[in-house]
Parts: sequence; C-alpha cells; structure tokens
Amino acid sequence: MCQILGAPGVRVPAIMERVTDPVEHGAPPSTAREPPAPLRRPAALPARRRSAAEEARTLLAGARQGVLASLSADGAPWGSVVTYGALADGAPVLLVSLMAEHTRNLEADARASLVVAEPPNDDNPLDRGRVTLAGRVVQPEGAARAAARAAHLEAMPSAELYIDFDDFRLFVLEIERVRWVGGYGRMDTVEAPDYVVAAPDPVAPHSHGAARHLNADHADALLEIAVALAGFTDASRARCEGADRYGLDLEVATPRGTAHPRVGFTAPVDAPDGLRGACVELVRRARATDLSGDLATD
Amino acid sequence: MCQILGAPGVRVPAIMERVTDPVEHGAPPSTAREPPAPLRRPAALPARRRSAAEEARTLLAGARQGVLASLSADGAPWGSVVTYGALADGAPVLLVSLMAEHTRNLEADARASLVVAEPPNDDNPLDRGRVTLAGRVVQPEGAARAAARAAHLEAMPSAELYIDFDDFRLFVLEIERVRWVGGYGRMDTVEAPDYVVAAPDPVAPHSHGAARHLNADHADALLEIAVALAGFTDASRARCEGADRYGLDLEVATPRGTAHPRVGFTAPVDAPDGLRGACVELVRRARATDLSGDLATD
Repeated sequence: MCQILGAPGVRVPAIMERVTDPVEHGAPPSTAREPPAPLRRPAALPARRRSAAEEARTLLAGARQGVLASLSADGAPWGSVVTYGALADGAPVLLVSLMAEHTRNLEADARASLVVAEPPNDDNPLDRGRVTLAGRVVQPEGAARAAARAAHLEAMPSAELYIDFDDFRLFVLEIERVRWVGGYGRMDTVEAPDYVVAAPDPVAPHSHGAARHLNADHADALLEIAVALAGFTDASRARCEGADRYGLDLEVATPRGTAHPRVGFTAPVDAPDGLRGACVELVRRARATDLSGDLATD
Repeated sequence: MCQILGAPGVRVPAIMERVTDPVEHGAPPSTAREPPAPLRRPAALPARRRSAAEEARTLLAGARQGVLASLSADGAPWGSVVTYGALADGAPVLLVSLMAEHTRNLEADARASLVVAEPPNDDNPLDRGRVTLAGRVVQPEGAARAAARAAHLEAMPSAELYIDFDDFRLFVLEIERVRWVGGYGRMDTVEAPDYVVAAPDPVAPHSHGAARHLNADHADALLEIAVALAGFTDASRARCEGADRYGLDLEVATPRGTAHPRVGFTAPVDAPDGLRGACVELVRRARATDLSGDLATD
C-alpha cells in the first residue's frame, strides 16, 4: 500500500481512496487513508444504492449501441458493433443484415454476449460502468416478433427504413448470465431472474445535468444537506458527485479531510423528472433538522 | 427505392443519399437522387482517401478502450471492456487482472478479437467508424515485454500503479484479420500485412476541431475552395464536413442541389499540427486559379 501511495509524483485518483475490496479491473488495493467520519449521527435515511441488477438495466436503457461477441465458423470469438432496443424484461433486440458476419455467426451458433458501456471519460476509461449480457439469440415469431420489432424501432426509429427487408433479421438475446462492472471496486454477477424484474433508473438520463446544476447554482443547499443530513457539521463545502433515484453522492470538504457520504431520498424517485422534487425535499429536511445534541459520539 | 424516399415524413439522412453500394449494416440501397456535378473541371488533385488499413490504424490510435471478445470455458463468446495501448505495428497490448473472466479465457484459449469504435453520435450510431481486430494473444517476454509494457503505459499512464503486480498479465493481440466499417456504405476487410505497415492519420485528433474552426471562421475561404478547386462555380455556400491528412470533405450548396466534393491537399499532412498549413495552401491555390475557360464540358 505504501508502495503505491508513497510513489513520488503519482496522483492517486480520489475514487481509489475509497476502494475497500480487491478488485479485478486494475485498481490498486485499499489504502490506509481513512475518510473523516460524520460528527453528528446522519439524519438522512440509510442511503440505498441501485442494485447490480438495476445498474445493468440502467446501462442497457441508457444506450442503443453495444458490441456483440459471436462465434465465427471456426469457433473463434468475433466482436462487432450492433444497435439494439430492449424488451420490457431487458432482453436486447438486435436488427442485423444477412450480409454481416455476425448474422452468419448467430445463425450457425446462437451463443452470444452483448457489452454495453458508458462512454469513456478522459480521466480513466476503467472507472466507468459496463455490463455483459450473455445468452442465446432466438428469432422471435408472431406476437413476440411484433414486440421485438417495436422495441428495436423505439430505440432506432431510422431502422423503419429497412427493418422489414427480407435480408434483415431480428434477434432477441435471451439472457442467461449478467456481469456488471460499475468502475473501480464496484462489480457483481447478476442472476437472470433478478435482471428481468429489475427496473432501469428513470432519472439516469438526467442525473449528470442535475449534478451539474446543483453544483453550479445550489452549493449552499448542498452544504446544508452535508451538515444537517450527512452529519458533517464541520463541512466547509459540498459538491454533488452523482444523483440517482435513491439519493445523492456528495463530496464534502472538512478540516479533517474529504468525505464522500451518500444522502438518501425519503422515497425512491419514480418519474424521469422527479429529481428536482426529491432534492427540494432534502433541503427542506436539512433546514428542519435540529442540530443541537445527538452527536455521533453520544 | 421510391419505397424509401417516398415514405411521408421519413427524413433520409444526407449520408444515405450518397450510398452507391449495397451495405451490410443497415443503410437502405442507393437512391436515384444524383448530386450536382462540378461546372468546371476541378483544379484540385484527385483527392486520395485514407485506405481501410489507415482507417483501422487511425481508429486504434484514437482510443484506449475497446471491447474484447474471448472464449468462455464452454466455448461461448464473452465480451468485456479492456484498455489497450498499441505497438508500432498496431498490435494492441492489453493489461488484465488474473481475477477477471477474460484473463482466464485468454489463458485457456488465445483466440480473441478487439473492437474499437468511435463514440456513437446522436443521429445514428451506425454511421460511425469501428474496427474488429481478430487474432491470438501472446504473453510477450524479454524485450518484447518491455516494448509492450511501454506501449500500454503510454496509453494508460495510471496503470503504472499496478502493471508490475504479480496478478496482472500483459497480452499482445497478434492480428490475423481486420474488418473495418466506416459508417454507411464504407467498409472493407484489411489484410494483416497491410494493417501492419499502414500509419494512423496524424491529424485525426484535431480534425473535428479544424472542421469546426473552418466553418465558424473561414466560410468565405471554403467557398473559394469549392468554386475554384472543386469546380462548383455556382456554389453559394460551402461547409467542411471532415478533414484528414489527404484533404477536406465539403458540403457545397448550389442552385442545382447539394454536392459533397472532396478536395485534396498538395501533399499528405505528416504532422499532427499540419492541417492549418495545408488549408492555407488550399486557399492560396484557390485564389491563384484562373477561373476563365476550362469548363467541365470542354
């Protein structure tokens, strides 16, 4: 550990400081540097996180392009870019041309996996979410085909131009195995039944914008939340690092160091435009909190 | 064809109007609408395009994250996100943890392919470049390992923290087969020897910015180029749609319709910062062109 942190000139990304388990995708092991604890018992509810199944469903819902791994005639793995829509149970629907190598592959061997990844960021492409959905493709018929066709077109309206051509095929990937990686130190295997019943986070498309807005225009409110709800009564500054249907991830500066508490909403947000109301409610609760007594060391 | 263009309310992306060959990734077949021809014989040199091998090398050089397809123990295809650097011959160098499924896969069966794709755009994710590099991985030793290590670190400096850990492996993907797709109607298979000797386009990292700058600040110069060098003497407006080491792709408005000529530089640009000089030279040539006589119909 000291070997890592002690290396001169090596900047350790903040995210790594929080890693507590050995990870498989390139982060160093945990460090000895402990973030500061709250000084008061947090008034916010225990902050639930999206489950791995919800993360997987959210990633799938947030894109319409992925990389398909299929098997070439000789059994070698072949990767190729595909577009997809998703059925209500999270099964991806691919539309592929008979002229494409992956289509010939799928017709000969139905085994496939689809990788969907958040766009890489500049800092570190490994600190981003991605999911692998592995299973077998089927060509849906009848009502199942109609549902698959509609799901693909919802994601890719321009495919209307050729979706019914004779030389295109619709495939549904029936999922048997899901592996989600959320970035450094966050990963899990998801059982197919859990994946099927999980829902994508409805606020995910707006969460980056919401965090930007909170940081740009509501720094005072974030500080009130950090002090009153997260219990960092010595906080001097708070930033929103992320927002999801269950709460906010904060970065809180204190004289004792930087903490990364999570503050939960009273209830999960169920509507795509519900983040604003949930944040207003957090501020209301922060202002209503009695900051006398109830120290964390009580 | 009329079936496509005649559909009411269906916007046909401009790019599709230029498709002349059947394609495998979802574009409709060619349309009957012919773009206008130049009125004068173009004064610019025949505008070379990047070869498929150069496109593949340019894509690889422009990213450091891709999706690896490997084989699970049961022979099923498994996709996963990996980071890479590239050796001088374009072979990707992967750094993977023993804890990761893809590492176990590669150690059991060396066959793999790596997909590198441009980030999707909002209009249509299929109208973007991507490449599949297929082959077998090897674990380099001695001087080859040192070169591979340096190549990976050049792309991923933060990997310095763990690249020498016992539970990480460096793999070089020795390429046997390359499939490049440039978007609708642009695709090719590249032979491995051609891939190895091709060079990435040095101006690719700056080409989007250059096109934006030309359109924002030098619309008059683009129009001069369209008139004098591309031969569209009736052009009313010209935009730069793309720039590469060999020339500019223009969109030219004329009373006869919109044309998409390409204008070649006098010599390929060899330096990352060479686009500006090449464009200045184009404008100089445009202004020096004698526009009397020499009609395309001569």
